[in-house]
Amino acid sequence: MSDSLAASALSSVPQRLAALRQRMVQEGWQACLIPSNDPHLSEYLPPRWQAREWLSGFTGSAGTLLVGAEHAALMTDSRYWEQAERELQGSGIDLVKLDGPPTPTITSWLQRLGRPAEEVKVMAADGLVLGLAQGQALRDALTDAGWLLQTDRDPVDGIWADRPSVPMNPVSEHAAPYASTPRADKLAALRLALQDKSATHHWIATLDDIAWLLNLRGSDVDYNPVFVAHALVDAHQVTLFVDAEKVSAELAGRLQADHIVCRPYEEALTAVKALPADATLWIDPKRITWGLREAVPASVKVIEALNPTVRAKSRKTDQEAHFIREAMERDGAAMAAFYAWFESALGHEYISELTVDERLSAERAAQPGFVSLSFPTIAGFNANGAQPHYRAMPDAFAVLSTPQGLTAQGLLLIDSGAQYVGGTTDITRVWAIGEPTAEQKRDFTLVLKGTMGLSRMAFPKGTLAPMLDAVARAPLWAQGMDFGHGTGHGVGYFLNVHEGPQSISKAIPTPDHAMQEGMVTSIEPGLYRPGQWGIRIENLVLNVARAPAVPSAPIGTPEYGEYLAFETLSLCPIDTRCIDLKLLRPDEIDWLNRYHAEVWRRVSPLVEGPAKAWLAQRTQAL
Amino acid sequence: MSDSLAASALSSVPQRLAALRQRMVQEGWQACLIPSNDPHLSEYLPPRWQAREWLSGFTGSAGTLLVGAEHAALMTDSRYWEQAERELQGSGIDLVKLDGPPTPTITSWLQRLGRPAEEVKVMAADGLVLGLAQGQALRDALTDAGWLLQTDRDPVDGIWADRPSVPMNPVSEHAAPYASTPRADKLAALRLALQDKSATHHWIATLDDIAWLLNLRGSDVDYNPVFVAHALVDAHQVTLFVDAEKVSAELAGRLQADHIVCRPYEEALTAVKALPADATLWIDPKRITWGLREAVPASVKVIEALNPTVRAKSRKTDQEAHFIREAMERDGAAMAAFYAWFESALGHEYISELTVDERLSAERAAQPGFVSLSFPTIAGFNANGAQPHYRAMPDAFAVLSTPQGLTAQGLLLIDSGAQYVGGTTDITRVWAIGEPTAEQKRDFTLVLKGTMGLSRMAFPKGTLAPMLDAVARAPLWAQGMDFGHGTGHGVGYFLNVHEGPQSISKAIPTPDHAMQEGMVTSIEPGLYRPGQWGIRIENLVLNVARAPAVPSAPIGTPEYGEYLAFETLSLCPIDTRCIDLKLLRPDEIDWLNRYHAEVWRRVSPLVEGPAKAWLAQRTQAL
Repeated sequence: MSDSLAASALSSVPQRLAALRQRMVQEGWQACLIPSNDPHLSEYLPPRWQAREWLSGFTGSAGTLLVGAEHAALMTDSRYWEQAERELQGSGIDLVKLDGPPTPTITSWLQRLGRPAEEVKVMAADGLVLGLAQGQALRDALTDAGWLLQTDRDPVDGIWADRPSVPMNPVSEHAAPYASTPRADKLAALRLALQDKSATHHWIATLDDIAWLLNLRGSDVDYNPVFVAHALVDAHQVTLFVDAEKVSAELAGRLQADHIVCRPYEEALTAVKALPADATLWIDPKRITWGLREAVPASVKVIEALNPTVRAKSRKTDQEAHFIREAMERDGAAMAAFYAWFESALGHEYISELTVDERLSAERAAQPGFVSLSFPTIAGFNANGAQPHYRAMPDAFAVLSTPQGLTAQGLLLIDSGAQYVGGTTDITRVWAIGEPTAEQKRDFTLVLKGTMGLSRMAFPKGTLAPMLDAVARAPLWAQGMDFGHGTGHGVGYFLNVHEGPQSISKAIPTPDHAMQEGMVTSIEPGLYRPGQWGIRIENLVLNVARAPAVPSAPIGTPEYGEYLAFETLSLCPIDTRCIDLKLLRPDEIDWLNRYHAEVWRRVSPLVEGPAKAWLAQRTQAL
Repeated sequence: MSDSLAASALSSVPQRLAALRQRMVQEGWQACLIPSNDPHLSEYLPPRWQAREWLSGFTGSAGTLLVGAEHAALMTDSRYWEQAERELQGSGIDLVKLDGPPTPTITSWLQRLGRPAEEVKVMAADGLVLGLAQGQALRDALTDAGWLLQTDRDPVDGIWADRPSVPMNPVSEHAAPYASTPRADKLAALRLALQDKSATHHWIATLDDIAWLLNLRGSDVDYNPVFVAHALVDAHQVTLFVDAEKVSAELAGRLQADHIVCRPYEEALTAVKALPADATLWIDPKRITWGLREAVPASVKVIEALNPTVRAKSRKTDQEAHFIREAMERDGAAMAAFYAWFESALGHEYISELTVDERLSAERAAQPGFVSLSFPTIAGFNANGAQPHYRAMPDAFAVLSTPQGLTAQGLLLIDSGAQYVGGTTDITRVWAIGEPTAEQKRDFTLVLKGTMGLSRMAFPKGTLAPMLDAVARAPLWAQGMDFGHGTGHGVGYFLNVHEGPQSISKAIPTPDHAMQEGMVTSIEPGLYRPGQWGIRIENLVLNVARAPAVPSAPIGTPEYGEYLAFETLSLCPIDTRCIDLKLLRPDEIDWLNRYHAEVWRRVSPLVEGPAKAWLAQRTQAL
């Protein structure tokens, strides 16, 4: 690439695209693909890997940029269509609306680039930020379409002059008692799993797996308390690819004692290439990049299976469950303090969606053990609540109230959560602003029936999570309505707010989805009326063992097997002013009353004054 | 094989096994596998293909016989363990209890046959009665274990001297108005599906697909109104491999008019081998045998996908639904007449499980349009009802009542159904004999809650049937109980009582399982207490379209899409004396009352005298 390009920071999207196209000509690429990934397939990307945003100007968290000599396109799903249309204006990039897997869309877009030619065309993509499964699908589709996928170069190399560096925030220990299992024990269990499959080495690229395994935490990305690293585990040691200056000498010493040695982050790829010729390497095809997989020497035997840490960390220990309950109580106290202020200020003070975020975040930050938010707060009033991934921005937000009164009546949806040293929270509540309409109450009650119905389920241990999805949707389906997102996701322990392997959704179930004791999952059905309002009622629940009906029953009797039930973890009132009581059955009202009694019992000792009075009022039995 | 063997009918299992082993030595086979299949992978086998029963003496409908030089084993699932133990006594055949897929069990059994040798060992199985998918799994496992699967010979050839011939019962037309779609229209639709995949030929081996496609019926096997045949469809004609003497000259003429020509059944395999070299053949890997697939010339391009007829026949037309409702009313009238007699005779006459079958079958046979039963009646009193596939036999049955009174109190489970020219029925009821205990009532009510819960579901069109399974199990799961069979199966239209593609079960869902308007499915949760009693409450339901909540709502609003609900088809009272009312919610009682009102409305015009009085009493609102 030319020095002149590298020397100047390109200030506009058209300039950046022009620079990329100049490189494309030099390299002989007919197209480039820039995904929204980092080398760890993280949900939140450090700025260094936001090349897609830098090149396109589109700031949404999901989207793939395609660049040809004359055309460019940004593919993204329905959550971001409105935002993308706005942000892509004047960029020369077309919005391609995605409504299914991206690969067919990519190949059909490529067909538009020019008339079919006999020679093979080349599409470049950085293999080091391309998921392995994603890359395989793409390669196969491109081959069929007469294209070659070239993955050994990063298209923005030499163009993105002021590219941010790898984050260098310090790594810290997640210590006992919050870390309930010493890392030596976790490593021993992992090594047993490797032995079971006769694997000599295991590469871990996913940041939450590394953080959990080593009882370490970081702050390299927003919301997820992880640090940028790779880990290579063999029978005797762990090589942690993390820059030395992020790890204090004292921590490095403690890691060394557990046979964990740090090497520079940049050496990870070299280490893959240097794996012993007779190694058997375990990788997780959904949790590793194409580029890393390609670097594995041909003689190394590769086993592709779920990272053992994914399953292990999904099952919280009893001690972790104890701290999670404590974190939930604190989170509930923060919510109570916030809502007490909110209800008293509503109609008397200026309150916008941004104010809601600020005040609620401040209440959480005041709680013991608070570390950070676990995701950006969604505070959406009326029509804004109908966008499941809405986020109020400093230049675009709704105002609920001024000193002169309410700006409008309706519903306020707040989806929020935090990281505490003893757990991760994620809760959605919908609050009445003024008097909800009959239709709003009906929608709210139907969603609530779904949340309650699934929360009350018991089921055999090992039931595949997607098989429970219909239970949460049934009350909406009965009215010919549905929602377009999953019903529930796994949640980490002072880790990512979205973690697998379980998923309560319409996904085709696989054995990886089996529900096991100790898992923490969200239950969050919703209902969205575009332009009007949105409802989502979300609690986190813990899979707890249920004594079988007849403990000593032999196999073959109807009671055989082990059962799980859900313990509802989240502790915050559900706004009963939004309920249409005619739609609730007595057993549902009973569940709600028992839930509110539990919220009062556990949260009231942590609040005082107006918050306590508010909690007493909002937890009253129906 | 030696003439001496073929000449004599071998009268005992040990003699038959000895003859097979003699042949094994001659052929150089170290093992034989004899499955429970016919060339059409039918559920009910014509006697000609009951080689497994002939060789082993085991009469159950599912089981695979393995024979080695010294050992022999019969593998079967838990439904048949008791029966197999009894029937295999003195045979020299071991029972191998199957609790999962058979292939691993087969290979581990083979390991017992002798010490590992370097030379390849041969297992023989008749490829013409081995399912394609089953054969592929077996071949792969055997290869891994150092065995060769030889499929070009039938192990019992020349040994089974008095082997029954292919059934020769006449084929008849399923005529209008009951056959609502002319076969020319069905063939036109099928040919469009073939064109869509650029297939030039389509082989159909499954008897229900052939019968449905050609509007023909037969009586070659019990319960299923089908005839033994193969069909080869191309763009211009259908070759029906069925013996000429089964088809009247008049019918043959009408078939000819639709470009359907009959050729001898025995020529099917030759026809496969003679497919044009440039043909593209569509086959269904789950509905064709290994042997047929092997016979396809190598140059023929093969497309493997669900037979289009499977999906087409699963969606009953409005006209068919009309006749199904009529058949259900007649079936309900037969049930009412039977139960009226049964309740009046109970405690006063001799009644055994066999009597129940006889009387109930006689009532059905007296109904207009009756053709045959749709499966063997299951009438199981108390402990017998706890065996889901129980069948009373002339030498083993329970007596419920004598002129002196009841023999015992408890529950009688009756699972029964019939073939009518306008539909197929399948219904299970559990009846109080004397006064049910509190525990029996509890079990009954929990199962009933499952039946009602699923019957009331509405869901988006295309929902994969297994995703609904949890709804029927939820009330049992809540008590730490479950049942070991599926919740529901598809049902044919005057055709097989078990037909796909939908299946409400714990099966991993596939796109083939999508629920569509017009499908008829059973809903039959159960609960089985071995040695005590069994409960199953089964109705057939029809997938009917539901108007969306907001008919004109654009895509993206919560009401988008089309919804289905279940119309309950079966019309027979549910014995409310078995209900523990405390366990039912008001909305459940309401559903039951509305169901009983509907039963009365539609069945009462078809019954008189005691049956009408009985119906009035048993359909009273709770």
